[in-house]
Amino acid sequence: MIEEKGILFILSGPSGVGKGTVRRELFEQENDLKYSISMTTREKRPGEKDGVDYFYKTREEFEKLIEENQLLEYAQFVNNYYGTPRKYVEETLAAGHDVFLEIEVQGAMQVKENFPEGVFIFLFPPSLEELKNRIVNRGTESQEKVLGRLKEARNEIEMMDAYDYVVVNDHVEHAVTKVTAIIQSEHCRRDRIAKQYKKLLEDELS
Amino acid sequence: MIEEKGILFILSGPSGVGKGTVRRELFEQENDLKYSISMTTREKRPGEKDGVDYFYKTREEFEKLIEENQLLEYAQFVNNYYGTPRKYVEETLAAGHDVFLEIEVQGAMQVKENFPEGVFIFLFPPSLEELKNRIVNRGTESQEKVLGRLKEARNEIEMMDAYDYVVVNDHVEHAVTKVTAIIQSEHCRRDRIAKQYKKLLEDELS
Repeated sequence: MIEEKGILFILSGPSGVGKGTVRRELFEQENDLKYSISMTTREKRPGEKDGVDYFYKTREEFEKLIEENQLLEYAQFVNNYYGTPRKYVEETLAAGHDVFLEIEVQGAMQVKENFPEGVFIFLFPPSLEELKNRIVNRGTESQEKVLGRLKEARNEIEMMDAYDYVVVNDHVEHAVTKVTAIIQSEHCRRDRIAKQYKKLLEDELS
Repeated sequence: MIEEKGILFILSGPSGVGKGTVRRELFEQENDLKYSISMTTREKRPGEKDGVDYFYKTREEFEKLIEENQLLEYAQFVNNYYGTPRKYVEETLAAGHDVFLEIEVQGAMQVKENFPEGVFIFLFPPSLEELKNRIVNRGTESQEKVLGRLKEARNEIEMMDAYDYVVVNDHVEHAVTKVTAIIQSEHCRRDRIAKQYKKLLEDELS
């Protein structure tokens, strides 16, 4: 009865928190989510398809898109660009589908700047003590290095202030249930839909 | 790992939309919701228990509580007061339980004023056309009366602006699923929990 636009959901969180596992589990369930397809300058590998695995671009094309602010976020790894094309996201949302993006904290902050109407979900480690032990006991690192890593982890976690939701990844099924609830409840938010309901009201109840 | 306060959820909406049915179905499912117990000046009936069915008060006691702003909302029906005691709600929330209140639109507006941190859910009729037909074809009413009722229905629906969520009651199971998702996702909202997580961070990750 209501024609609704899709919503962009961004799942992020500190390294090693299990973002990929939660995303994979989420996509194995029945839902109407579209995974955001990245754009890259790296070469297409055998079996990969343009517009399925990635959107493949030349370095020149990619840099032109950066200039035109056509990427919600991008980064360079091993001399190649990777990014999230704004056009694909906006067209998919306009067609009424939700888009799901799983991404590192730095990338999420870029998306926040370029697409603040997205819904930002921060995946929180199940236990900070465990995270700490992992950092401290990593091996034969100097105390200085260990302290640096602890600081980095704290900084990453303090970025949760920019997010709308925090989900603890204590068990992957719990985390997926919560993310699913967030997706469903965001579609019920009055500020998203009240305008459309009022239009309906004017048309039908007069 | 986090000690969390409960949340007050208020389900409301226009007369006849099916609030009671959704509430009953919700409470048949497994969850940790406590139903808000009302206070009344009407006499206790056989089999009823104080603090279970209602909190029973004299007219004098009730009016004193009104003066002391100890009711989140109240109204008079058939010469008796009915209301929602603030103390019961606040103590239940402090003990970590969510409280659920199903109430008419006018009462919900009072709660909004007295307890703005509640989460307000507006139950929307499945079809405005059906609502209109019900009003128009109610019988032998004058055209003036019919127009009056249409206006009232419009006014009630326009009150949705004060709500956080809108849920369409197309099927009771769908509505209950959505209300359940809202309850779960509200517990993940960063602005509710970030402070506690940061405290944890200071304690553990240093």
